[in-house]
Amino acid sequence: MTDHPTATTPGPEAGAADPGPSVAQLDTIVSLSKRRGFVFPSSEIYGGINAVWDYGPLGVELKNNVKRAWWRAMVQDRDDIVGLDAGILMAPQVWVTSGHVASFSDPLVECGTCHRRYRLDELPGAENLTQTELRDPTIVERLNLRCPIDQGRLSAPRRFNLMFKTHMGPVEEDANEVYLRPETAQGIYVNFRNVRESSRKKVPFGIAQIGKAFRNEISPGNFVFRMREFEQMEMQYFVKPEDAAAHFEAWMPRRRAWYERYGVDPERLRFREHRPDELAHYAKKAVDVEYRFPFGWKELEGIHNRGDWDLGRHQEATGENLEYFDQATGEHFVPWIVETSAGADRAAFTFLIDAYREEEVRGETRVVLGFHPDLAPYKVAVLPLLKKRPEIVELCHRIRDDLKRDVMAVYDDTASIGKLYRRQDEIGTPYCVTVDVDSLEDRAVTVRDRDSMEQVRVPVEGIRRYILDRLEEARSAG
Amino acid sequence: MTDHPTATTPGPEAGAADPGPSVAQLDTIVSLSKRRGFVFPSSEIYGGINAVWDYGPLGVELKNNVKRAWWRAMVQDRDDIVGLDAGILMAPQVWVTSGHVASFSDPLVECGTCHRRYRLDELPGAENLTQTELRDPTIVERLNLRCPIDQGRLSAPRRFNLMFKTHMGPVEEDANEVYLRPETAQGIYVNFRNVRESSRKKVPFGIAQIGKAFRNEISPGNFVFRMREFEQMEMQYFVKPEDAAAHFEAWMPRRRAWYERYGVDPERLRFREHRPDELAHYAKKAVDVEYRFPFGWKELEGIHNRGDWDLGRHQEATGENLEYFDQATGEHFVPWIVETSAGADRAAFTFLIDAYREEEVRGETRVVLGFHPDLAPYKVAVLPLLKKRPEIVELCHRIRDDLKRDVMAVYDDTASIGKLYRRQDEIGTPYCVTVDVDSLEDRAVTVRDRDSMEQVRVPVEGIRRYILDRLEEARSAG
Repeated sequence: MTDHPTATTPGPEAGAADPGPSVAQLDTIVSLSKRRGFVFPSSEIYGGINAVWDYGPLGVELKNNVKRAWWRAMVQDRDDIVGLDAGILMAPQVWVTSGHVASFSDPLVECGTCHRRYRLDELPGAENLTQTELRDPTIVERLNLRCPIDQGRLSAPRRFNLMFKTHMGPVEEDANEVYLRPETAQGIYVNFRNVRESSRKKVPFGIAQIGKAFRNEISPGNFVFRMREFEQMEMQYFVKPEDAAAHFEAWMPRRRAWYERYGVDPERLRFREHRPDELAHYAKKAVDVEYRFPFGWKELEGIHNRGDWDLGRHQEATGENLEYFDQATGEHFVPWIVETSAGADRAAFTFLIDAYREEEVRGETRVVLGFHPDLAPYKVAVLPLLKKRPEIVELCHRIRDDLKRDVMAVYDDTASIGKLYRRQDEIGTPYCVTVDVDSLEDRAVTVRDRDSMEQVRVPVEGIRRYILDRLEEARSAG
Repeated sequence: MTDHPTATTPGPEAGAADPGPSVAQLDTIVSLSKRRGFVFPSSEIYGGINAVWDYGPLGVELKNNVKRAWWRAMVQDRDDIVGLDAGILMAPQVWVTSGHVASFSDPLVECGTCHRRYRLDELPGAENLTQTELRDPTIVERLNLRCPIDQGRLSAPRRFNLMFKTHMGPVEEDANEVYLRPETAQGIYVNFRNVRESSRKKVPFGIAQIGKAFRNEISPGNFVFRMREFEQMEMQYFVKPEDAAAHFEAWMPRRRAWYERYGVDPERLRFREHRPDELAHYAKKAVDVEYRFPFGWKELEGIHNRGDWDLGRHQEATGENLEYFDQATGEHFVPWIVETSAGADRAAFTFLIDAYREEEVRGETRVVLGFHPDLAPYKVAVLPLLKKRPEIVELCHRIRDDLKRDVMAVYDDTASIGKLYRRQDEIGTPYCVTVDVDSLEDRAVTVRDRDSMEQVRVPVEGIRRYILDRLEEARSAG
């Protein structure tokens, strides 16, 4: 139930001087996303499908870069964490053991007049109810809640399970009902022993996974913030029970620093600890990294101390021994788990809105996506000052081909140079290389920096090294 | 219905001198895969789930490397192809238009005695039936086909649709039935206009996508070769109708060369053109790249000339204009599509079995996964000759940390050096760096090449550059 968004309690606002991106800016970003090819409404020519979005040519690069940056920080850079890629479809009993079949649900109410359905805890007047109150069958009546559209009477709440179901095998019957996983974490737990034995890791060690999960949300929304199909980036860290609290404390600043390293304004980030009545049944402690979205402070990532709940339950349900044997001390124990659970879509979305800025330049407005170079869809654009000169175009192609061996590089000659710069600014390309008439003489080109707009002259032969060094600097700076 | 595996007609065998990997070798590879952490049976502690496999710590690196190599070849290296990442869930009408609801099905027969279900075209005696014969209700009787297990009478064939169904939204009714996509291609077609407009591409241009697809196969099997959940790597190339045949011919050798470049034995690859009666309804021509698996020649990738079937149908169904306007000639037309459709799991599997070899070295058998360095899960292992000397271990860590900035590097000290080498050979690590007592004096280390087993002495300060240059050479060699 990790990362399942709950209504966020308004908390003390960090950085009151910076209200963060505005709702109007969000509309601008959604529109830019479609126009430039970051995000399209899914199946749009068929009228769309609710709460699913498709990543366009730039969006897929951004999202892949976000996933790669996470994998780098969580797997490549660390000795104590290995990766995994488990299936979306799992044995259905897994979700009985995990508690999802019984209780991965939201309280649903229906209007008797218009038959619209709502999540009870999102109705005006019910946002701050406790979990116990949300399960109270008399709550709607007691609070006199009404349909926000037509003021109709609302039904008593019933629990609506958020897992998508399907059937596997050539016949549809209860016996072969399976679920689309609502979280990637369980794929890690059921593979715990196979991973440990094959990788020979000793506690503390972690297993990291990126993959799709599905939740039949009653009220998805806010662009890609809450989708019914989404991608998680989860890491489960297996530790000695007595060390769990310390590992939890250590993971908090690391995970927050990851967002800052890739450019998120620290003023728009905060920690929020779950109140005891908010805690999921498996959690001993839970802290969210929150971001100040245009629609309020919302969860970016959850850090959870899950105790021995997961491995203990799976051990009990399967009769398989999931204990860890500590050779140094001779102890056997079920490891405790500290989880860091982030959303790839949500992270990409955050980097996108946080990167957005408008600047006045010589009386004109310049739109810039100030992405960290590691996240930018294109690292460099190669532009001809005069596309009518074949030698210039040819040199552009040669430079672009050379750069393409290492990074995403693009050639564009479909507008004037000023417009081409603006276009690359708007999609966040950190460097533009311009070939002009002088280049044919002095074998040098102009490199323009997206943020400072400063231009330097670099010899053609050194251009690849120059760009790669700048990108390497940006990567190492974090 | 791209990439939907059909029974393969035995054809002329290329390279008769090389029988390819044997069935016994396949068992060895499946066992190695589990032991070393490439592939685990999904939900194994729950008794598994049919036809789903999970990628372990090494498998996820291999598969990610395969996907990255494909993306590099199909997107990064090319000016005329952009990427996309569409949802698994799409508007259900898409699958009506595409023909999947009506006819993405296999002929299913059931034994009257044991109630086992079979795909008719996989029963002994029925492998070579035409599509028309497979739809003939009297065919089972006419050929007197029987249950292969208990000789029971079989039912007449009925069509079994291979799409997984689920419900979206907080109520289960026909109105919100949706499918798990059985192919990624349709996500490209419905986004065609959004991609073209945002990317400003002119025909010929392509859209590439990697993503999960789901098919409720009647008889999955052969390890990860045919799974119910799998990952596709598809590219749709949009062209002028009159150029489609020429583009088709151009894509064939390119796609075959991709497998060869990453190490697949050319003798174990062949093209096979579909017979007219095998062609899917949308296809004007189809050629498979086949690999000689231990269980026979099977499809690795399909190359299809789909004509204007897809965009034409979607245009008709939605009333949206999906024509392309050629500014140069003033023509409007629905582009034709040449598709290259590969499986990421199948490709990873092929690279794995093709890389497997056993060698005699000084009277002992050495198992090597001879992966192309771009595909190897770890690029380099750093090993101490004496783990009891803290200065050696410390130097190992320093070197490993330095390498990790750029590549997957691992440290291992849990066995003798000979055993550590064998372990790295068996998982395909191209380079081992060994730190010995001399290293503390001469500030140099030994680099051992996986394939030649040759060792060279390299100064510590130059080790990162040395490894990166070798990897760069391997990448450029293709």
